[in-house]
Amino acid sequence: MTSLAARIVTGEVRAVARAATAIENRRPEALELLAELFERTGRAAVIGVTGAPGAGKSTLVDQLARLLRAEGRTVGIVAVDPTSPFSGGAILGDRIRMQSHWGDAGVYIRSMATRGALGGLAAATTDIALLLDAAGRDTVLIETVGVGQDEVDVARLADATVVALAPGMGDDVQSLKAGIMEIADVFAINKADRAGANELERDLRGLLSLGGVQPEIVRTVATEGQGTGELLAAVRRFLESGARERRREELWAARLREMLREQLMERLPAAEIEAAAREVAARRRDPYSIVREWLERI
Amino acid sequence: MTSLAARIVTGEVRAVARAATAIENRRPEALELLAELFERTGRAAVIGVTGAPGAGKSTLVDQLARLLRAEGRTVGIVAVDPTSPFSGGAILGDRIRMQSHWGDAGVYIRSMATRGALGGLAAATTDIALLLDAAGRDTVLIETVGVGQDEVDVARLADATVVALAPGMGDDVQSLKAGIMEIADVFAINKADRAGANELERDLRGLLSLGGVQPEIVRTVATEGQGTGELLAAVRRFLESGARERRREELWAARLREMLREQLMERLPAAEIEAAAREVAARRRDPYSIVREWLERI
Repeated sequence: MTSLAARIVTGEVRAVARAATAIENRRPEALELLAELFERTGRAAVIGVTGAPGAGKSTLVDQLARLLRAEGRTVGIVAVDPTSPFSGGAILGDRIRMQSHWGDAGVYIRSMATRGALGGLAAATTDIALLLDAAGRDTVLIETVGVGQDEVDVARLADATVVALAPGMGDDVQSLKAGIMEIADVFAINKADRAGANELERDLRGLLSLGGVQPEIVRTVATEGQGTGELLAAVRRFLESGARERRREELWAARLREMLREQLMERLPAAEIEAAAREVAARRRDPYSIVREWLERI
Repeated sequence: MTSLAARIVTGEVRAVARAATAIENRRPEALELLAELFERTGRAAVIGVTGAPGAGKSTLVDQLARLLRAEGRTVGIVAVDPTSPFSGGAILGDRIRMQSHWGDAGVYIRSMATRGALGGLAAATTDIALLLDAAGRDTVLIETVGVGQDEVDVARLADATVVALAPGMGDDVQSLKAGIMEIADVFAINKADRAGANELERDLRGLLSLGGVQPEIVRTVATEGQGTGELLAAVRRFLESGARERRREELWAARLREMLREQLMERLPAAEIEAAAREVAARRRDPYSIVREWLERI
């Protein structure tokens, strides 16, 4: 084991931070390190918390972290929501920490810069979750805003996924993005003390009645700590139901495909794909010849 | 132009069928042919009709085809639903035709064998839609059951997508699969003469009120031809709204990525990915080394 890997396994924060930066930048040596650490992973419960901006995801994550710390468990948080106080926007990045966890070595927080057109957010985030798992964190909470396919993919790769909703978001929210409703293992109706919570729950139950899977719905007021214990209990019921184990191979197949896709696509910039799409949409070039050329080049 | 391409452009059915088979089998010469035909495409309106099994998609498609024929327009139908009478399951395949269109050269029907683990269904289906476009069909209807990511992808790549729902499907349906609700440009509440249609529409409107986009909802009883004229009108309003044009570049970027992904993934069988996922889930191997090996081999 290399010395960096050995330091990570003992949970040394500085080593973890260095590795997380390398992972986020998708550096080749980060993949070597993860290959080395992989045998130390698989112990942590990885819980995704997703939902539209304004649903109160970061407060929910904060409260879940408090509850886990009160039980003596160590927590890792990976925040990929640019509107979250955890990530605090592009500039402040990692430097902003929740005041409530400041100085508590039992909570390690890592914010992810949104990679924009670069892609690879899903891969980087799940890799950092694995890193925190190898570093001995009992639970890893991934906070991600459910507005892009990439972010839906992140949530999909967790052991359990909480989708947070809040009343009265209707017109503010661009839309509940493709797939976000369907990946929920547990729903949190947050800000449940606001007007419209009953209607939201009714609409949600109506929608769920159309499908086969029936995730639990828990009402929370995360700012007051109300309902968050019930939310954690519902997540644990899901994890203990065995659904997590049944999903593991499927999740790894999805991740392997994603890892392969990411590394292949890295060889072709998004700007080039978009420029080609404009040519094709205008019928100036045909897509089959373009893909053939790409394949020859890759 | 090769002679096969020239025969396709004149709409010769035998040539179209031969090309469709080559496309479905993902043969390299099919891609050459499509590259050649591409400049003749872009005229047809491609309309996807999707929804859970039992929603009455094939009857809706049948009725839309009748309406278009009554206007003198030519129609191509691509059916990728294994439960549909168009595709009629694995064995009967293409040989089953709707009795009502039998002998009408103005309706060309092509069923797709589900490719299972082979993947590439989305690419093959959209390629066949392009083929029918090049063959001069005014409208191409794609019927696909909304139960897999692949099939959601098919619907996403149409110019307009109708999602069909029906009352009382709740417990029969495995689930409204990831993303299927969000790709609707128009909703059809089919079998609207059945109990539960009001509740279904209410739940649907409740759900839609959470998001930003407001697709039209049309009630139909496709078996009686009720509401199908309104459905076609709603689809045309969507197409004429300009949303189709705005989506074109985005759709082509998605298709280019998908085409590239498909051709890269073809070099790695699904069974191998699944076997690797089992090894990783059991922590016998690490995923990073596996992907590195694959990349060296591809």
